[in-house]
Amino acid sequence: MKKLVKNGVIVTAADTYSGDILIEDGKIAAIGKGLDESSCEIVDANGAYIFPGGIDPHTHLDMPFGGTVTKDDFETGTIAAAFGGTTTIIDFCLTDKGKPLQNAINTWHAKSEGKAAIDYSFHLMIGEMNDQVLEQLPTIIENEGITSFKVFMAYKDVFQADDATLYQTLIQAKELGALVMVHAENGDVIDYLTKKALEAGSTDPIYHARTRPPEIEGEATGRAACFTGLADSQLYVVHVSCAEAVNQIAQARNRGVNIWGETCPQYLVLDESYLEKPNFEGAKYVWSPPLREKWNQEVLWNALKNGDLQTIGSDQCSFDFNGQKDLGKNDFTKIPNGGPIIEDRMSILFSEGVQKGKITLNQFVDVTSTRTAKLFGLYPKKGTIAVGSDADLLIFDPTVKRKISAETHHMAVDYSAFEGMEITGEPVSVLCRGEFVIKEKQFVGKSGYGEYIKRSKFNERNEAQQSPVKL
Amino acid sequence: MKKLVKNGVIVTAADTYSGDILIEDGKIAAIGKGLDESSCEIVDANGAYIFPGGIDPHTHLDMPFGGTVTKDDFETGTIAAAFGGTTTIIDFCLTDKGKPLQNAINTWHAKSEGKAAIDYSFHLMIGEMNDQVLEQLPTIIENEGITSFKVFMAYKDVFQADDATLYQTLIQAKELGALVMVHAENGDVIDYLTKKALEAGSTDPIYHARTRPPEIEGEATGRAACFTGLADSQLYVVHVSCAEAVNQIAQARNRGVNIWGETCPQYLVLDESYLEKPNFEGAKYVWSPPLREKWNQEVLWNALKNGDLQTIGSDQCSFDFNGQKDLGKNDFTKIPNGGPIIEDRMSILFSEGVQKGKITLNQFVDVTSTRTAKLFGLYPKKGTIAVGSDADLLIFDPTVKRKISAETHHMAVDYSAFEGMEITGEPVSVLCRGEFVIKEKQFVGKSGYGEYIKRSKFNERNEAQQSPVKL
Amino acid sequence: MKKLVKNGVIVTAADTYSGDILIEDGKIAAIGKGLDESSCEIVDANGAYIFPGGIDPHTHLDMPFGGTVTKDDFETGTIAAAFGGTTTIIDFCLTDKGKPLQNAINTWHAKSEGKAAIDYSFHLMIGEMNDQVLEQLPTIIENEGITSFKVFMAYKDVFQADDATLYQTLIQAKELGALVMVHAENGDVIDYLTKKALEAGSTDPIYHARTRPPEIEGEATGRAACFTGLADSQLYVVHVSCAEAVNQIAQARNRGVNIWGETCPQYLVLDESYLEKPNFEGAKYVWSPPLREKWNQEVLWNALKNGDLQTIGSDQCSFDFNGQKDLGKNDFTKIPNGGPIIEDRMSILFSEGVQKGKITLNQFVDVTSTRTAKLFGLYPKKGTIAVGSDADLLIFDPTVKRKISAETHHMAVDYSAFEGMEITGEPVSVLCRGEFVIKEKQFVGKSGYGEYIKRSKFNERNEAQQSPVKL
Amino acid sequence: MKKLVKNGVIVTAADTYSGDILIEDGKIAAIGKGLDESSCEIVDANGAYIFPGGIDPHTHLDMPFGGTVTKDDFETGTIAAAFGGTTTIIDFCLTDKGKPLQNAINTWHAKSEGKAAIDYSFHLMIGEMNDQVLEQLPTIIENEGITSFKVFMAYKDVFQADDATLYQTLIQAKELGALVMVHAENGDVIDYLTKKALEAGSTDPIYHARTRPPEIEGEATGRAACFTGLADSQLYVVHVSCAEAVNQIAQARNRGVNIWGETCPQYLVLDESYLEKPNFEGAKYVWSPPLREKWNQEVLWNALKNGDLQTIGSDQCSFDFNGQKDLGKNDFTKIPNGGPIIEDRMSILFSEGVQKGKITLNQFVDVTSTRTAKLFGLYPKKGTIAVGSDADLLIFDPTVKRKISAETHHMAVDYSAFEGMEITGEPVSVLCRGEFVIKEKQFVGKSGYGEYIKRSKFNERNEAQQSPVKL
Repeated sequence: MKKLVKNGVIVTAADTYSGDILIEDGKIAAIGKGLDESSCEIVDANGAYIFPGGIDPHTHLDMPFGGTVTKDDFETGTIAAAFGGTTTIIDFCLTDKGKPLQNAINTWHAKSEGKAAIDYSFHLMIGEMNDQVLEQLPTIIENEGITSFKVFMAYKDVFQADDATLYQTLIQAKELGALVMVHAENGDVIDYLTKKALEAGSTDPIYHARTRPPEIEGEATGRAACFTGLADSQLYVVHVSCAEAVNQIAQARNRGVNIWGETCPQYLVLDESYLEKPNFEGAKYVWSPPLREKWNQEVLWNALKNGDLQTIGSDQCSFDFNGQKDLGKNDFTKIPNGGPIIEDRMSILFSEGVQKGKITLNQFVDVTSTRTAKLFGLYPKKGTIAVGSDADLLIFDPTVKRKISAETHHMAVDYSAFEGMEITGEPVSVLCRGEFVIKEKQFVGKSGYGEYIKRSKFNERNEAQQSPVKL
Repeated sequence: MKKLVKNGVIVTAADTYSGDILIEDGKIAAIGKGLDESSCEIVDANGAYIFPGGIDPHTHLDMPFGGTVTKDDFETGTIAAAFGGTTTIIDFCLTDKGKPLQNAINTWHAKSEGKAAIDYSFHLMIGEMNDQVLEQLPTIIENEGITSFKVFMAYKDVFQADDATLYQTLIQAKELGALVMVHAENGDVIDYLTKKALEAGSTDPIYHARTRPPEIEGEATGRAACFTGLADSQLYVVHVSCAEAVNQIAQARNRGVNIWGETCPQYLVLDESYLEKPNFEGAKYVWSPPLREKWNQEVLWNALKNGDLQTIGSDQCSFDFNGQKDLGKNDFTKIPNGGPIIEDRMSILFSEGVQKGKITLNQFVDVTSTRTAKLFGLYPKKGTIAVGSDADLLIFDPTVKRKISAETHHMAVDYSAFEGMEITGEPVSVLCRGEFVIKEKQFVGKSGYGEYIKRSKFNERNEAQQSPVKL
Repeated sequence: MKKLVKNGVIVTAADTYSGDILIEDGKIAAIGKGLDESSCEIVDANGAYIFPGGIDPHTHLDMPFGGTVTKDDFETGTIAAAFGGTTTIIDFCLTDKGKPLQNAINTWHAKSEGKAAIDYSFHLMIGEMNDQVLEQLPTIIENEGITSFKVFMAYKDVFQADDATLYQTLIQAKELGALVMVHAENGDVIDYLTKKALEAGSTDPIYHARTRPPEIEGEATGRAACFTGLADSQLYVVHVSCAEAVNQIAQARNRGVNIWGETCPQYLVLDESYLEKPNFEGAKYVWSPPLREKWNQEVLWNALKNGDLQTIGSDQCSFDFNGQKDLGKNDFTKIPNGGPIIEDRMSILFSEGVQKGKITLNQFVDVTSTRTAKLFGLYPKKGTIAVGSDADLLIFDPTVKRKISAETHHMAVDYSAFEGMEITGEPVSVLCRGEFVIKEKQFVGKSGYGEYIKRSKFNERNEAQQSPVKL
Repeated sequence: MKKLVKNGVIVTAADTYSGDILIEDGKIAAIGKGLDESSCEIVDANGAYIFPGGIDPHTHLDMPFGGTVTKDDFETGTIAAAFGGTTTIIDFCLTDKGKPLQNAINTWHAKSEGKAAIDYSFHLMIGEMNDQVLEQLPTIIENEGITSFKVFMAYKDVFQADDATLYQTLIQAKELGALVMVHAENGDVIDYLTKKALEAGSTDPIYHARTRPPEIEGEATGRAACFTGLADSQLYVVHVSCAEAVNQIAQARNRGVNIWGETCPQYLVLDESYLEKPNFEGAKYVWSPPLREKWNQEVLWNALKNGDLQTIGSDQCSFDFNGQKDLGKNDFTKIPNGGPIIEDRMSILFSEGVQKGKITLNQFVDVTSTRTAKLFGLYPKKGTIAVGSDADLLIFDPTVKRKISAETHHMAVDYSAFEGMEITGEPVSVLCRGEFVIKEKQFVGKSGYGEYIKRSKFNERNEAQQSPVKL
């Protein structure tokens, strides 16, 4: 049955206007005023904003890490995401050196199939680059539609790849039509500083931050940008946390390098001092890169405003405080890195960004959805409100005031990193491919509704920021 | 009668998709597939692109300069603009020091009323700032909807304002809700270099460029950016021509300054060597700022791509080669500055920018129309293809190959600055408020159809790049 | 009679070593160990450092300003300078527009002749540039040996020159062999901010700083640097106070511009908060440019260390707190600008710079003496300890601890800007042209001993930082 | 017997003056005019310049490389150095991973003892950092006076150290009082580009340059600078070849990092095009980093002028064209890297730098001798002309015009990289510790005269650029 969403203010990455949206077969069939209502289910948006469903480019669901596994899996994680207005996620598929990449992908399919309540896709981790890996990539791109590869410059002796691997991945990505993603911190220096801290008996959570100084995030970002320019390839820097990294990205863009940056809500509203909370509470705020000195927040917001950063990911990677985070009670290196944000990503950005005048409504849509769709080959199926696109819609009331709390959130973890934070604006209803997942703040979807999305190649993404139009 | 534009590919600043556009009462009533055709005039776009009608933020029609008057007036100028796909212009209203500003505005209304074939608005030149000027501004903003003020840092003893005037204009603009525009070149240094050149007998057109080096465009741009940051105001830099100026804008944006930059087709595709053409032909290429060394073109294109520059103006200011440009035959300072571009602005940008992969289709729309509409208070009436907006549409065939020539252009001048340039892509039909102005490459509009547009205040432009959303 | 200075540690801009200095006819005749002592007056340095006598490139003695006159004249000022280890000053000769420059120079000769206890020279202020001024300059350079011209970019309607004047002065200086000096603050903006502050009833001393923000010192510095590069001339920026200006100088030097910067002790050790001292005491700290936020001090020290700034001037310009500074009790704009530092310049730099490891001993000599001598055409007569140079020597005990106080200083003013500051190191004896001016901390010289020094042309200064060697 | 050097113009890093130099016991006893000539051998400098003997901080004598050994050993190499005016060298002692460092040092002593005609010292290569290495360092510093450690960021699988090694070396160097030296190129990227070039059949010498782009020299330099700042240590970047690296050094210095840079004559006067010489002649110009595009020369000269680079090394590493360089006839990676420059280092710098006005006479002395002495703990024994210092003197005629040629040079190789280059200025006589090594252009010294010099610790070098004075 067709749906007609009426009385909303439609917001895209470019436009803001009043209009009704006709949904047919899960897609947007028409937008207008006075559209024919016959044989339509009427959805009254009641004056709320209608945004494209959010796209979270950076999640870790059901992921093993440091001897434990993230609390949220594809079921709880995607339901929480939906509550927050997100209708598509791209999760990281971890690979093992020396083993077939397809094995890892199959594992990730097994984790997600029948569980996801919203649509999803995978990035692929590249831990090594050699003939065996090279042989597999074309098939994976073809069969799986996985067109983004992630390389870690940190986590020495675990995920960390050397410069040769990063450089070759950039070369290959260019040829194959993929986007390289990078975790940019210098793992060698972190490793040394960490050992020294432990030797000195510095085991509290704050030492997580002190052993990962912003300078070496800037350094690694600059190094990756240099390689990208040399290779004439394309790079996406995940979770940019500090001025040093923003400056490297801005400089590279000014030189003409194809580089984009993602930041996360935690870096925009929290800061290093949270790691010093008493009673080991600092462990709740252990991310990598770590939270930074507060003045970096203004730099990050300005970078979103002026276009030096382009997307917002959650880096969702949730662990319980009791039973998981406390693995590191006597040794900060044993605290599982990450936190629960998938649900609050869009609300925080709206409340702190749009409401406080730091970014515009259209920029909000661009950074939470549209740009991600374009960069990662989901567009135009995903990422906008336009005729022909999937009817992934977020009906959002910008006036509701509420507090974030673990008591009310839908993620499977026992704390919120934003506990007590006052937020203006709330998702009311969320549709994915024309079907309600959230309706009037209630979950009405079902696990397994979500579809796996094959993504297009980087150089076929005809509206990605830099790609030329082929006519 | 309603119109239904079918079979086009709609392009906005964010989206590219297939859909039909329903026009009613001059506005866009609906966009969709399979819209009801009854009682509609059908317009077949034939697979062409449908862009929002272009908005030219920088024209000088019927303008006195150096003892002569620009060849194109509001009639020929706007018809030529329409041929090029532009449906709105904002022309510069020159004022005289010591005289009521309203006088100048009345003069400009007299020049344009009954003549313009497309819609138009005015910027206001500010040559001095004092109590008399201050008293007049609120009324002008209120009555005339003129919410942009231009200050010249060059043309000593003619238009040039001192730093105090520029700074105060920025302060006032912030309070009144206007955007300050600046011609950024250091007039004092130019004046000195010019006198020295003439004393040395250097009278050829090339000396126009040599007496206006890029360093002093960079200097003036940096100075204006510094004032804007201090005043916490907003600034738009017209006709950015060189790397030095781009760098100052990029740096200021990175510091959080509200600054935007415009460049023009001539700086993107022509270069300083044109001023050395024999037989005084160099005079055709005399603009201020002057054409620069060729390597600057790449810097400008990259700035459009990465967002350090935001708009494309024509700086249309046309003089015949014979009878006007030749006033400067023996003295380059007597060559009227400027050239005919209003007609070719969009075609050049499409052919050189989109077709050659330097910017995307959506960026093309953004820089030629949408961003200008937002920055100058024309949005959402103008600048996009969305329900509720004026039906200002450009149906554009991206495949036609043709050459630019004075023989075929519609501007009133005897030469083209782009004579012989090969272009891919051509405007086919142009609608302004739902009515054809150009239909199948023929002018079918009429002089006087164009309406004067009052523009909203800067801080009320709810989707201007930086302004906060008020809910 | 010859003198032999024994048992000292000789320090030059390059070297530190033990040796005895033989003085004959006021000049250094030999340096060595075991020099013949016969017919020599023996001066025992007792293990102290022996520095070249200090050269203060920036003093205002007996200068009219704002309806009053600086308290220190050439007698008290030069005696105080000698107590501080300085043996040469270059004072600013103020000129009046429209009047012969020689008149002003004659006035300055009248102020200094028969009064100065140490050697001195004059800079010449250029307030306008026209044919009359141009005609006078070659004679002044020839007859008076005045080879440095100062242009003010601030003090609107008083000293301020426009950009045309600054640019032409740079052009002329290059041709004539002079060094241009610039007071770099944007006077137009200061003028506006000042009027607004007074209108708002903000009359306290702190508003002196708030109406002269660092951004406009950076702006003016960048502007002057731009002109210098364009003119291929040479520029010396006086009293650099802030990071913004340092950055502009560093960038220009990296582009190859011939630019040097001076800072002053007050900017290195005091900060903006001093202007907020109660009971109008803030008036003691009113300099232009104003004291800055404290973090700038580290930037300035680092610039001295790495060579982006090259000299230390005092900007001596002293007014009594009672009777002069209090002219501005109800209006900060009436507070005479400046303070007493001529005596403490070298001691502060030694104690805060050398003792605290921010600069080396050799850098201390370079910035307080040698570089100034080279830049301003005093070298090799002045500025070093080398055979053939004037025996201008400072015997300095680096171990004495003392406090600066108005009770003990020798300047004619009733307060010290550094009252109570703890200092390590003290001048013991000072010789000028081989004669004691200070001997064992007592003044033994006489007014009128000081000689006027004609300086060489910039392009004849064969060891000035950038000038080529002519063999 | 004492010597008295008369009639010369003495030049130090700070001063230029006429004076006679008395030498006693190999040291400078006095400088003056009219010094007692009795019982002195008179050396008539005839109006020539007298410079401190040159110090070459970067030589590879008798060094195995790529299956061959450098042609010049400590005998031919130091004699050639002396002909060029150099009186001290610091040679690189290569170490083997896993073997005692003292073994390598002993090997280097064996290579040099009884052979060197001038004084010498050693740098120590650090290829790995672990407990074994850490244990050895204090003894080596104490017993051998080796206070500089070199780390390679390039030569993958040969010399290349990883980031952990570099970072730890910086940490250790700070504690132990040593200066870290770095070869800054990214070896991983070079390795990849090299393999790709060979795969593509690109074996000519020019591919040596094309597989080592300047971007990755800049990257590595920035990375090392970042580590140095973090570690609050000290770094010396050898053989800086390009703008990218200079910019990183300048930026780091502006942030306050203790970093210095060396460049070499080859980068100042040769360029990448030399590698394209026909008949395999390009192989003569194979250095790492490679020669760069010509415009970099101006950047390097300006960096010497404004102090962003501080020293000139030769990177002497000579191989015959016939029999050694031609090992790489069919594979550029087999061409031994390096060339013969030890003899021409100072002459080229004087002729191209001082004579052409790019640097001053005093800067010439600073960068060829004084600064190196201070940075590496040779000062004040070496590096200046001052009482108490070794009488290492270069008597230099600045007027002689000559051509560099393999036919006339004294290095043991069969070609000159500067064949035919016209030079103004020539060493006439050279004294090392008061004894002639070169007299009137003839070698009069002897092999084995040279002494091994133990150097002081970095933090005891009381006049090194940044170290504080301890009183």
